[in-house]
Order: sequence, then structure tokens, then C-alpha cells
Amino acid sequence: MRPIADVAKDLGVDPTHLEPYGLYKAKVALKALNGRPSQGRLILVSAITPTPAGEGKTTCSVGLAQGLGLLGVKTAVALREPSLGPYLGMKGGGTGGGCSQVVPADDVNLHFTGDIHAVSAAHNLLAAVVDNHLHHGNPLGLDSRRVLWRRVVDMNDRALRDIVIGLGGHREGVPRETGFDIAAASEVMAILCLADGIHDLKQRLGRIVIGFRSDGSAVEAADLKVVGAMAVLLRDALKPNLVQTTEGVPAFVHGGPFANIAHGTNSITATRMALAHADAVVTEAGFAFELGAEKFFDINCRYGGFAPCCTVLVATLRALKMHGGVPLAQVGAPDPGAVSRGLANLEKHVENIRKFEQRCVVAINHFPGDTEDEIAVVRDHADVLGIEAVVAKPFSEGGEGCRALAEKVWAVARRSRPYFKPLYEWSEPIEKKIFTIASEMYG
Amino acid sequence: MRPIADVAKDLGVDPTHLEPYGLYKAKVALKALNGRPSQGRLILVSAITPTPAGEGKTTCSVGLAQGLGLLGVKTAVALREPSLGPYLGMKGGGTGGGCSQVVPADDVNLHFTGDIHAVSAAHNLLAAVVDNHLHHGNPLGLDSRRVLWRRVVDMNDRALRDIVIGLGGHREGVPRETGFDIAAASEVMAILCLADGIHDLKQRLGRIVIGFRSDGSAVEAADLKVVGAMAVLLRDALKPNLVQTTEGVPAFVHGGPFANIAHGTNSITATRMALAHADAVVTEAGFAFELGAEKFFDINCRYGGFAPCCTVLVATLRALKMHGGVPLAQVGAPDPGAVSRGLANLEKHVENIRKFEQRCVVAINHFPGDTEDEIAVVRDHADVLGIEAVVAKPFSEGGEGCRALAEKVWAVARRSRPYFKPLYEWSEPIEKKIFTIASEMYG
Amino acid sequence: MRPIADVAKDLGVDPTHLEPYGLYKAKVALKALNGRPSQGRLILVSAITPTPAGEGKTTCSVGLAQGLGLLGVKTAVALREPSLGPYLGMKGGGTGGGCSQVVPADDVNLHFTGDIHAVSAAHNLLAAVVDNHLHHGNPLGLDSRRVLWRRVVDMNDRALRDIVIGLGGHREGVPRETGFDIAAASEVMAILCLADGIHDLKQRLGRIVIGFRSDGSAVEAADLKVVGAMAVLLRDALKPNLVQTTEGVPAFVHGGPFANIAHGTNSITATRMALAHADAVVTEAGFAFELGAEKFFDINCRYGGFAPCCTVLVATLRALKMHGGVPLAQVGAPDPGAVSRGLANLEKHVENIRKFEQRCVVAINHFPGDTEDEIAVVRDHADVLGIEAVVAKPFSEGGEGCRALAEKVWAVARRSRPYFKPLYEWSEPIEKKIFTIASEMYG
Amino acid sequence: MRPIADVAKDLGVDPTHLEPYGLYKAKVALKALNGRPSQGRLILVSAITPTPAGEGKTTCSVGLAQGLGLLGVKTAVALREPSLGPYLGMKGGGTGGGCSQVVPADDVNLHFTGDIHAVSAAHNLLAAVVDNHLHHGNPLGLDSRRVLWRRVVDMNDRALRDIVIGLGGHREGVPRETGFDIAAASEVMAILCLADGIHDLKQRLGRIVIGFRSDGSAVEAADLKVVGAMAVLLRDALKPNLVQTTEGVPAFVHGGPFANIAHGTNSITATRMALAHADAVVTEAGFAFELGAEKFFDINCRYGGFAPCCTVLVATLRALKMHGGVPLAQVGAPDPGAVSRGLANLEKHVENIRKFEQRCVVAINHFPGDTEDEIAVVRDHADVLGIEAVVAKPFSEGGEGCRALAEKVWAVARRSRPYFKPLYEWSEPIEKKIFTIASEMYG
Repeated sequence: MRPIADVAKDLGVDPTHLEPYGLYKAKVALKALNGRPSQGRLILVSAITPTPAGEGKTTCSVGLAQGLGLLGVKTAVALREPSLGPYLGMKGGGTGGGCSQVVPADDVNLHFTGDIHAVSAAHNLLAAVVDNHLHHGNPLGLDSRRVLWRRVVDMNDRALRDIVIGLGGHREGVPRETGFDIAAASEVMAILCLADGIHDLKQRLGRIVIGFRSDGSAVEAADLKVVGAMAVLLRDALKPNLVQTTEGVPAFVHGGPFANIAHGTNSITATRMALAHADAVVTEAGFAFELGAEKFFDINCRYGGFAPCCTVLVATLRALKMHGGVPLAQVGAPDPGAVSRGLANLEKHVENIRKFEQRCVVAINHFPGDTEDEIAVVRDHADVLGIEAVVAKPFSEGGEGCRALAEKVWAVARRSRPYFKPLYEWSEPIEKKIFTIASEMYG
Repeated sequence: MRPIADVAKDLGVDPTHLEPYGLYKAKVALKALNGRPSQGRLILVSAITPTPAGEGKTTCSVGLAQGLGLLGVKTAVALREPSLGPYLGMKGGGTGGGCSQVVPADDVNLHFTGDIHAVSAAHNLLAAVVDNHLHHGNPLGLDSRRVLWRRVVDMNDRALRDIVIGLGGHREGVPRETGFDIAAASEVMAILCLADGIHDLKQRLGRIVIGFRSDGSAVEAADLKVVGAMAVLLRDALKPNLVQTTEGVPAFVHGGPFANIAHGTNSITATRMALAHADAVVTEAGFAFELGAEKFFDINCRYGGFAPCCTVLVATLRALKMHGGVPLAQVGAPDPGAVSRGLANLEKHVENIRKFEQRCVVAINHFPGDTEDEIAVVRDHADVLGIEAVVAKPFSEGGEGCRALAEKVWAVARRSRPYFKPLYEWSEPIEKKIFTIASEMYG
Repeated sequence: MRPIADVAKDLGVDPTHLEPYGLYKAKVALKALNGRPSQGRLILVSAITPTPAGEGKTTCSVGLAQGLGLLGVKTAVALREPSLGPYLGMKGGGTGGGCSQVVPADDVNLHFTGDIHAVSAAHNLLAAVVDNHLHHGNPLGLDSRRVLWRRVVDMNDRALRDIVIGLGGHREGVPRETGFDIAAASEVMAILCLADGIHDLKQRLGRIVIGFRSDGSAVEAADLKVVGAMAVLLRDALKPNLVQTTEGVPAFVHGGPFANIAHGTNSITATRMALAHADAVVTEAGFAFELGAEKFFDINCRYGGFAPCCTVLVATLRALKMHGGVPLAQVGAPDPGAVSRGLANLEKHVENIRKFEQRCVVAINHFPGDTEDEIAVVRDHADVLGIEAVVAKPFSEGGEGCRALAEKVWAVARRSRPYFKPLYEWSEPIEKKIFTIASEMYG
Repeated sequence: MRPIADVAKDLGVDPTHLEPYGLYKAKVALKALNGRPSQGRLILVSAITPTPAGEGKTTCSVGLAQGLGLLGVKTAVALREPSLGPYLGMKGGGTGGGCSQVVPADDVNLHFTGDIHAVSAAHNLLAAVVDNHLHHGNPLGLDSRRVLWRRVVDMNDRALRDIVIGLGGHREGVPRETGFDIAAASEVMAILCLADGIHDLKQRLGRIVIGFRSDGSAVEAADLKVVGAMAVLLRDALKPNLVQTTEGVPAFVHGGPFANIAHGTNSITATRMALAHADAVVTEAGFAFELGAEKFFDINCRYGGFAPCCTVLVATLRALKMHGGVPLAQVGAPDPGAVSRGLANLEKHVENIRKFEQRCVVAINHFPGDTEDEIAVVRDHADVLGIEAVVAKPFSEGGEGCRALAEKVWAVARRSRPYFKPLYEWSEPIEKKIFTIASEMYG
């Protein structure tokens, strides 16, 4: 690993804007954006519908960035922060794998620079203030049974999902039903990832709906005079974290909301910081394109003022075989027919990508045991769809294994202008937006 | 503020042992202790019984360290980490005040280097594993109603003190009564402050009693196979944090258990790190001498293998007046008679100090409005007791205001050998120890 | 009111079998059935789908019985016991109304002879034994989170629907989620109404499923050795209660399960007791025919060994108008067209009655303001259906107002043999039975 | 057993005032008191401090009444109703034993005439109304955490002692901590036993304190407009129940509050009904004299307007031996020394009886194995105290075994006027009353 100060220097980050956390991690001050317009071309990595067989979206993103680096392109990658909870559980962390990882992986997977702790503290401070308000006479008239704001913990703690608090007599708060969610699912995390600075952060925090009065009117965080304290707790968490890949490519790893309940992508500030310093920026959105990438285009890009020049769709033969009906235990065996049947899934995602008027490259994330026959099935179908499908080996070969992919992607990206066509207008009513997404992305 | 790297350099910390957290905070690797014997003389700062009028023990400790620095003595101060919870509540943080503070105070008072978050995560991981164990058939036969291990949050969150968890049907854990304590009260925090390395930490974590079976036998953390994961979460938290005082004196701020439920002093590793690098090390123990300092001598010193050369007893005229019967609102008015009556409290603490065969200096922490007449009352009584009482002005004048105190203290410390007489033997039964403390310290 | 002893004497009940509760209520010992075969013809009163406008099914049943009495037929009526809970709430009791009531109405609506209290006590004894079992080591291995058996209270007590019990530390039971239902919804009540004696009662109580073990196997009441005590508590509740109507017709009012969760009709023993002593027995089943009467035929009649000779379908013009689309506030205004449209509901019920191969008479329960035109609409449609529709005035005129109805009904009943065709076979699997009911009754 | 109508007739109860519950139980209408002044002499049976060895207070009361009957005195006994809960648990019911029981014992021990069910229903109705009030906007401003009014169930149901109710979302009531007590401990039961009619009952119910507002002011049942409905539910429960003893002596068994939390004696109306019809009325108060009898004199007698003419103090040699230090397992063995030592307890009770200026007879409730030597010890000490001690055998010999006791008691009672000296004045403050009781009865 190179000292993070050296990585930052190569990227052109002013040393006075760098706040080191040990030798290999740093935060970059938001003022590093001042006077630096976006210069890079953004490349979005997404994937076909995930299966237990795995797609390796993060590994591909890191590998692609490393491949671009080998081509001499000044590249950075922008990724989500992994969550401690699932890491302590069964999953393998969220930092990529093999020769295409974000490092120091252990640090990133554990406390990292404390962002998720800060989100938890801010979230739970608001919850404590809500209960304190109820306890002290409840001047806002909040219905204690209609409080929406739960608490969070950075852990998969099943027994905390449904709880009754405020027990122990009338000195110990107001009894009510509530529970804990995992920290990454906090609305505060989603807000942190969308905010473009401390002022915007406060505005967004203030508009959080805490719950309802008996007359149905909403009580917001701003009503509780707690936004200032929350913002103080989030002051450092707002700054993007800088680490590097196994091959020393700068990596902005920052923000980690869940894609199933929020937009599921790294922070807007991380993407903007990357675009301000690199010529190529690889970012990812998932789980699959229709869920995470739709939000990336329709929410992140529009708030962030950026747009990808190319979208990469990651697929594995194993996942295609599962979509083609093969059980998990047998995806290792060659089965071109199953791959062919599974391409229906890939085809729908390509169709969806085109609805955003994005150009697309398919990355076949290579696993040991994949056969040429099977790969040919994908390639031939890509020809039919008018796109290119390239085999990539980020896990086993790092950037070198992604050189071909990087060449194709960069060929597309460098001649495209940043643009996409939104799926819906922001001004539309919420029901219409949902209908549009449901019928266009899933229809 | 000086860059923390410069502070560390002056102290003689090898740069490769320094892990910066921004420009002004750092952790020091435990290996910095390797081959460096304790060289410094330890000075313990404690206080008379606290009142709402305040004593300023931390401010005096910082001021004294700064005073020693002005005398040319290579000095460090070792202090507890403040807790976020009370800080967000009404209290003013735990970093001293005025011209005698630990800086950057906001950082130290907020997330600092994440130690308390790590303690919370390790603590709550154990709790989650306990409930998971109950949910999955409970092979250890733990009585779900006799689980002692609660959860923690770094917040004064009243409504979480008594709760019922595991609700929501049979897929959501086993219903039971429990609650949250404040993170600083975690047994994990107490363990962190006593452990002398990762191996010792694991041993201590493993012996945590989780609860009881119906036959009354205890279940320990080691039975749950979770100690390794807890230790990983605490890996960085185990390393002392280095910051500085307002006048640039190195400050090891590390570990913060509550004195009412644990030993209430900074970590043993922080004190040892300070003693390995400085000639004079100021540390503190409270609330008052009989509570915190008794534990410091009988527990910390014996685990840590160190002993003070001098004990400083902080008193304020205001507190003495309250002990003399004056209500809080009137402690600002001169009242030598009340000061005199309040000296009974100080005298008992001096008696207690002498039971440990410690030499003692009284520091009168000066407040605006203190009169010479009142000060004379204290000085005269100190004469009677055969000790010296020195006025100190750490808040308003910093190290300079503590020069006289530093001179007296250093005069005592440099000619004393590190020694104290324990109050009880470790081998005695717990009831006997409690009886000894009750009758000797409070009798 | 006539003394209940006189009523019983006229009915031919042996005085030694009568257990008086005050002057006007009595229980009849089960041995009164010994040696007395069923001699009466059973007449079932049901209704079209209920609306807030009311149908007066009980009032019609009482009125019809009084009308039969006026014809010189030795008649009894068999009805459900009202529940205290709804009575204390908004509803008007369950004893009929006006000139066609069961009396003493207040007594019957309140504690009556204590049957529902006995059901509650037996039900809650089982619940207490379940929790006691969990508390004392749980030798049966019941999963405390999968206990199905809740508690009951004879009251609409909303706050008891979802509760957590067993709190207060490990001496106070095992914490778990449960709740209270209304007593009439108790499975014990349903059992009481089906049991034909104390032995059968015990068998049925023993088969109650309390909950499940973690392996999914069921724990039954018999496993808890509590059935004997439950039966002792139900000893008197098992005996039918005898009261009278406003015109002195004997009324067996006994058992009151809810039709939405159980069979919803009076006890089998009450019906059998009435059939053993009277020549005509009027009983009722609702809410509407397809819900309550289906169960009456397919469950009660088959367990009880009886069958109706005629089914009376009660309708009101007001309800028909609501089925025809008229809002509640306007059902008082004449609207023959709406009545006509509403007849679709009546027609489906007639079709359902015919599936049981029952002969049917429609009773138009007359309200002030009903017009001849509207009545003619119903009569004409009844003609088309090949049945008779008769106006009855039980509320305003008592038995005399039901004389015409009684004549028609008796004409049918006395020349029919007790018979019906079941909708399904008991040996069919539960899914098939449900499918049959859904498609035949509601299809 | 004689028909209860015959028992009532002998007693002189007007048949129109008798409401039979089966052949052997009846309620007596309150109007039976009209125009019938108290004519009988009241005899109070109490006991020495109870031990697990048992005293047989109820058995002695019944035996004494039967003994008086044998003397030709027109006698009745007035007793508490047993509670279902303890009966289903381990205790043996509360109807006396052997040849001196109240019959039909099973009926009395089970539902009897439904009084306790009615008390439960009225109690729980109030609780339901409290929660309904909280749910519907809480116009009275009751603090949901300071509701004193719990619920009751006539069962020892441990798991209901501490519960959380109102869960399940905002449509299901307001979450709060509460619990169930046993029905006999209901304040409604205590009120029922003190009320002298329906009007007084309503007044007393209305003054029940439900809980407090946040300002500390009390909310009473009358504020909730529920007293009328409660009184309706208690209408019949207010009437004394009439049964008989094994030898046919009339027994008024009515009301059963617990002596540890209330006055612990049968209803005032039962005692008055007995005094209005019999020449001698035996009633009891316990557990021991200082607890139950103190309340009987200072509360019941003063509300009821009656006073005993003689107090009988029941003792057993077995209990005296336990008071003398013998363990339970050995009380069967003769030990005159232990009896002698145990007499200290008896002596204090005699002293207490004399504080009320009552004349006293000691009844030695004979057990098989009691020796003449031991009995002589008691007799001799009684001589010293100036009272008579008589052996009674109510269990084994019924009234005949109590003939000697009856003669002594009647000799005292018939020449004493009804009188006692209260221990305290009602107008004294509550603290003073408690102090008086503590120092006089226990001092």
C-alpha cells in the first residue's frame, strides 16, 4: 500500500485539504471542490439481477478502474461504504475481492473513519429527543403511537426489531412500540449521501418526518430544535473518504445507504470529488440496474449535476445459468443452453439502460470453469443487441485482466457527452412516478 | 495548535508508531512501549467531595502539567475520554476549561478517534449474539430472564433504560426484559482500560458473565465464541490517543469508564505510554479521592505496575463553603467561617491519602471573588495538618497560574520513590474488601 | 312474568330436574333428556345478509314461537345467550325486542346464570396453567412464542388485544406476546355448545391445541392435566337455561359462540331439550343464512342428530333497500325499485336454502312506514321463486302479529319430515370443505 | 341437606325475599331488613397468629354456631365467600371442614352465586373505560403512566402480574404498564362489603381513585361516568347469600375481601341480615386478631352499627408449639414446654382484645394427638389471665363437640351488652391511626 498522502498527491488533492486517519485512510475537506470544475468522464457499473451465485459488481468496478489506470487514464473509483452489521454476519464485506479490492480492506469494513457511527449517533440523538419530548409534557402534541422515527444500530440485531420502550414507571419515559433498524438503512444516511454541504444537510435533516399528531399533521425534526446538534455529529462524516485499490488507484469510499430502501449509491460529494480530480471515474449502482441505477440516474445524477458517459452491465455465466433455471449447486457445470435461456434477464436490463439513452458495454465477470462455448453464447446475443460483451478477470488478474474491458469502455466514454434521459419528471405526483418505474423498468 | 506529529516528536514517539487522525489527533501503537521502561514520576490529582459548585479537577490537572512544562520538566498528562452522551446533555464536556484545556476540544468531546463507538459496537455485538443464541434453540441453557448483559448507547436515552425486546412473533427473537446503559458504563470500557494488550483483552472479555442458567450457573462470553470478533472491533480502541493541551503539553486521552460503577480513570496503557516518554506524568482520579483514587491505587496501579510519587488534592473555596453549610446560590460571597467548617471534608480526604502512605499537596483552584481571608483559613489548617496548600489559577492563567503549585508538587515528587500501601489484599474475599473500604475510607 | 316453575311444569319438565336461579330463571338438568326422545318439529330462522338497518332475526324467532303458541301448538324457542361485552357497549342486547322478547331481559343480558363467567374461568385457567408450565421448566417443550391459547374477558377491552405478559423479573413468568379475546369467542364456548354431556366435554377440551413445540408438533390441553378442573368449572354451564318469552312461551337460552369464528348458534343440548319437550321448536342461525345456517346444518344438526322441517328467511324492506343501493339515512322512504334491486340478495339465500333441500318461507319483518307497494314487490318475487312471503309484526304485536306467519310455517313444518342434504362430507379434507362452501354458498 | 327454602323459613325470612339459586343456595333481598331491627347477639371469632400448622378459625365458627343451635339458641353464622383462585391452587377452600362445614361446599367454593364474577366484571369494566378514555383523546388529562387501577382475575395467574397493554399499533389503545390482581383483592370487593345499599355502593364506587394527572391531582371513577354501569353489574352481588352448615344452621356467606389489603370480613349486610333474624350470630375476622379483628371493630362495626358481645380467640396446641419454637414437622409430638413458650403470642392477643373492652373466651381447637398435659398448660395460663379456655372439637364432632364452648360463650354473650371501645377516632389523620395501630396492636 502506498501512503495515502502520496495517492492524494498524484490525484492533485491539495495536502491542506487532506485529513489523515492513519497512514492509509484520509478524509478530503469539502473545500477541495472549490474552484475545481468537474473534469472527468463518469462510468456507471451496474449488473443483471443478482443471484446467490454472485456477480462481483464491486470487484468489476475496481478492476475496470485499474484497467483504465493501465491505459494511462487518470482514474478514480467512487464506491459505497460497507456496513459493519452484515460484515459481522455472513457476508464477505463490500470492498471487492482478489486482485481488485479497496484497501486497507479490514479498516474499511470495520469502523473505517467512523461515518456510520456518526450517522447512528445523529439518528439516535433525534430518537432520544423525541422520547424526551414525549416525557416532558409533549408540547408538540405528537401521538406517541404514531412516531415513525425508530432507532438504528450498525448490527443485524434481530431481537431489537420490535420492542417496547419507556417502561419502568412514570419517571422512565412514555411506553411505546418501536424498534431498531440497521444503521445503513437510516434516513440520515440517505440524507448524508445527497447533501452537497453542511447547509443543505441541515435543511434536509430538518424536513425529516418524525411522526404524526392525532389530527394527522406531521411533526418534523426541525420542530424539535435538534438539527444543529445532529449536524455537528455529522460534520466529519460529510467529507468523502479517500483510500486506494490494490493497484494504487484512488478510491473515494463514502456513504452507504441500502438500495432497497434508499438510493443505494455512494455520496454525491464523493462522486463530485472524484470527477473534480480524475479524468475517468468509475462508480457503481445496484443491486441490479432497474433498482439501483434507476435511482442513480433519476435522483443522484440530478441532485449531483453529473451524468455517466457509459454504462457497464456486469454479468456472470453462473448467474445467467441460474436465470436459465439451473440450481445453485450446478452452476459450475458447462451449460450453454441455460446461459442462453438466462439472457432474457440481461436483455431486459439492456432495454432499460437504453431507456435512459445510455450507451452500454457488457462485462462478463469471468469465473474458473467458464467455457468458451458459453461465452460465445453471450457474445453472439450481444451482437444481436448491437452492443459489445467483453470478458473481464478482475478477481484473478486485477487491472491487467480488465484491460480489454477498459479499452472498450473508454472508447465509448471518451466520445460520449455526459447525458441521460430521465425516466420521469420530478414535478410529477408520487403515484405517477411509481407507476412509471413499475411499468417501464419491470413491465 | 501544533501538528500532532510535532508534539509526538518532542515526546520522543517514533513516527512509525504514530497513527494520525487528522492533523491534531493520533493513536500511538502499543509497540511504542517495547523496550521503553517507565521513566517518569507519576502525579495523581484527586479532589475533595464534589458539589454543584465544582472543583475543576481536570482543569487543575492540565494546568499543573502546563506548569511543570514551564519549569522545564518533560511532562505529559493522562486523562479519561469524555462521553458523548453527557456532552450532548447539559454538562460542559470533559476536557478542562479556559487556559487549561485538552485540544482540539470539540473533536475530543465528539467522536474523537472512535473508541467509544468501538466499545459500543463490541458490547452490542455480544448482546446480539446472546439473543441470537436464545433464538436458535439456546444450547447453553441460558435463562432468558436472567441475562445480565444489557446493551449500550453513547447517549442519555431515558426511554431505553427499561425495555422489552424480541417482540413481533416467533421469528423475531425471544421476548425478554432488558435495557440500555450509557456506553461509558459498559464493562467492555472497564476492561479496555485495564487490558495491557490484545491477549489480555481477550482473556478479560471471555470472562464476562452474561447471565445464568436455571440452575444458577453462570454463562460467560467465551461460551458464546464471540470474543475474537469483539477484540477485532476493539483493535484500534486499545491504542492510546495523543492530543495536546492549550499550551502544547502532550496529553494521552484514553478510556472513560464511569467512576461510580467502575474504576473511573484513564486506561493503564495511556498512563504507561506517558510514563515511558515523559519525566513527569499528571493523571487524575475522582469524583473524590475516596471513590476514584482508592480504585486507582488498589486496582489500576497494581495492574499497571506504577505508583504516584505525589497526590494533589484539589479544593475550591466555593465547595468548602458548601460543605460548611452554605447554599449554592451564596457560595460567591466571602465567608471564612463556612470555609473553616467545610475543611472537615478536606481533612478526611487527607487522612485517606495518608492511609496509602502518599505525600500530599492541596491545590486551591482559584475562582474570581475568592478572598485572602478565606485562603488563609485553608492555608492555616493545612499547616496544622502538616501539608502545603497552594493557590492555582489554571482556568484564567494556564500553566503560569500553576507555576507555584508545580514547584511544590515537583519538589515532593522528584524526591519520593513510587510507592503506596494498598488498602486491602487482592486475595481477601470480596465482602472483606468492601468492609475495609467502607470502614477505612468512609468510617 | 310467570314463575319459571310454572313454565317448566307446562312444558313437562320434571320439577326435580329444575334448578332455579331466582324466580324467573332455571337450569334444567341433563338427565331430563333421559328416556325422552325428540318429539318436536324444528323450525330454523335465518336471515338475508345483515345491514345496519337491522333484520330482527331474534325478534322474529320469538314472535314466531308466540304465534305458534296462539295456534295451540306446544312450542319452545331455543336461542343463544347474549354476551355481556357488547351489551355494555353500544348494542341493544340479544333478547329480541318490543312484544317479542325473552324475559327477564336484564338478567339474561347481564350475568344470567353465570355460563359466560364459567367459560371465562375455564378458559383462563387453561391459560394460567400454560404460563405456569412455561415458568416451571417447560417439560413439554412448548415454544413460548408459538402459544395459540390467549385469554378471554367478557368485555370489549381494546387495550387487552395485544399485550406482553410475564414481565417483572424471572420470578414472574416467561415474557411473551399474547392478548385477550372476548369471552364469547372462546373455543371453550364453542365446545360447550357442541358437547352432549360431561364426558364428551372433557374429550373435546382435551383436544384443544395450546400451541406448538419448536419442531412444529402440537401441545394439547390434555397434555397439561387441566381438563378435569376445567370441566368442574363448566359443570353447571353445561345445563340449558330455561326462561320465557313476553307471552310466556318457554325459551331455552343457552350458549353463545360468535358466528364469525365458530358455529354461532345455541347449544345442542338446548335444542335437544326443547325438542324433547315441545311439539314445535324455533331456533335461529345467522348472521345470514350462508354463514350461520350453513354451520347449523353441516355441524350442529349432524352432531345433535336433528334437522329442521322448515327454514324461515327473515328480511326487512329497509335491508332490501340498502342491498338495492339506498343509503342508511334514506331507507325509511318508500322505494319499490330499490326493494326490487335488493331482492338479488334474498334470491341467493333462497338458492342456498334449497341446496340443503329445505323448504322455505320468507318472513317480512314489518317496520312502521313499510308500504303495500314495496311488500307487493317482495311477494311477487317470492311467487316467481315458488315460495311464500308473509308479513310479520313481532315487535309491535307479539304473537298475534305473527299468527299468519306461524300458520304458513306450521303448514310446511308439520307435513315435512326432518331432513336436509349436507353440503359436504365430514371425511373430506379441510381444503375441499372450504372450497365447497366458498363456491356453493358465495359463488 | 335441607332445601334452602326450609332453612330460610325457620329463620323467619319472608319467602318473597328469597331468590333461590338451585335448591340449596339463595340470595336474600335487602328489603328483608326493612322493619326488622337487629335482635341478635354478635359473637366474634378470631385467632392467634396463624402458622402453617393451622388454627381452623372457620371450622370453629361453624362448630360454635352448631353448638349454640344444640343449646336451643336460634343461631346463624356469617362468613366470607371463598375465592376461586386459591381453591384451584393448593388451598382447601374456605368453607370449614369435617363435621363443621358450610354446604354445598363445592358450589360455595366454585362460582357460588356469581358474586366474585360480578365484582370482576365491574372492576374490569372500570379498567376498560380508563383505557378507552386514554385512547379517545384523554380529555381528563390522566397520566397514562400513573394509572393506579389494575385489572383482576379470579385466579392465581402469575404471568399477568406485570404486563404491558395497549400494543398493536395506534388503533389498539395506549401502551402502558399494568397488571392483574386476584379478584378478592379488588377495591370493588371491599366496597361491596361496606356498602349498606345500592345508593351507598354508587357513592363509594364513585370515589375510587383511578390515577393521577401530571399535576398530581387525582382522577376518580365518577369522573369517567361509569359508576351506574358498575352498580348494575353489582346489583345482585349486593344481596347476601344464604346457605347452611352441615347441621342445618343458617349461614350467610357473603363478600370476601382479603384481610391483608382490606378489612377481610364478610359483608356488613350479611352480618346485619343475620342479626335481624337470629338470636345469636357467629362471625369471624382474621387472619389473627390484631389484623382482621382490629379492622372489624374499627371499620365494620362502626359502619354497620353493631358490636360483638363476646370475642372467641381460637388457638391450637400445634400453633402454640410453633410459636414456642418447634418446627412444623414436629408439632404432632407432645411438648408442654413449647406450648408454654408459645403462650406469649396468645397473651398479646388477649391484651389486644381487652383494649377494645371485649370479653374473651379461648377456644382450643382440638387435634388428634393433643395431650391433657398440654391442654392444662393453656388452661392454667388462661386462669392467670382471668379468662376461660375451652376445648372444642368442631371437625370431628360438629356441634356436639362445641357444646361446652357454646355454653361458656353464650353465658358471656347473653349478659353483655353490645359494646366496644374503638382504638382510634375516625377524625384523626391517617398517620396517627397507623401509628396507634402499630404501637397498640403490635407494640
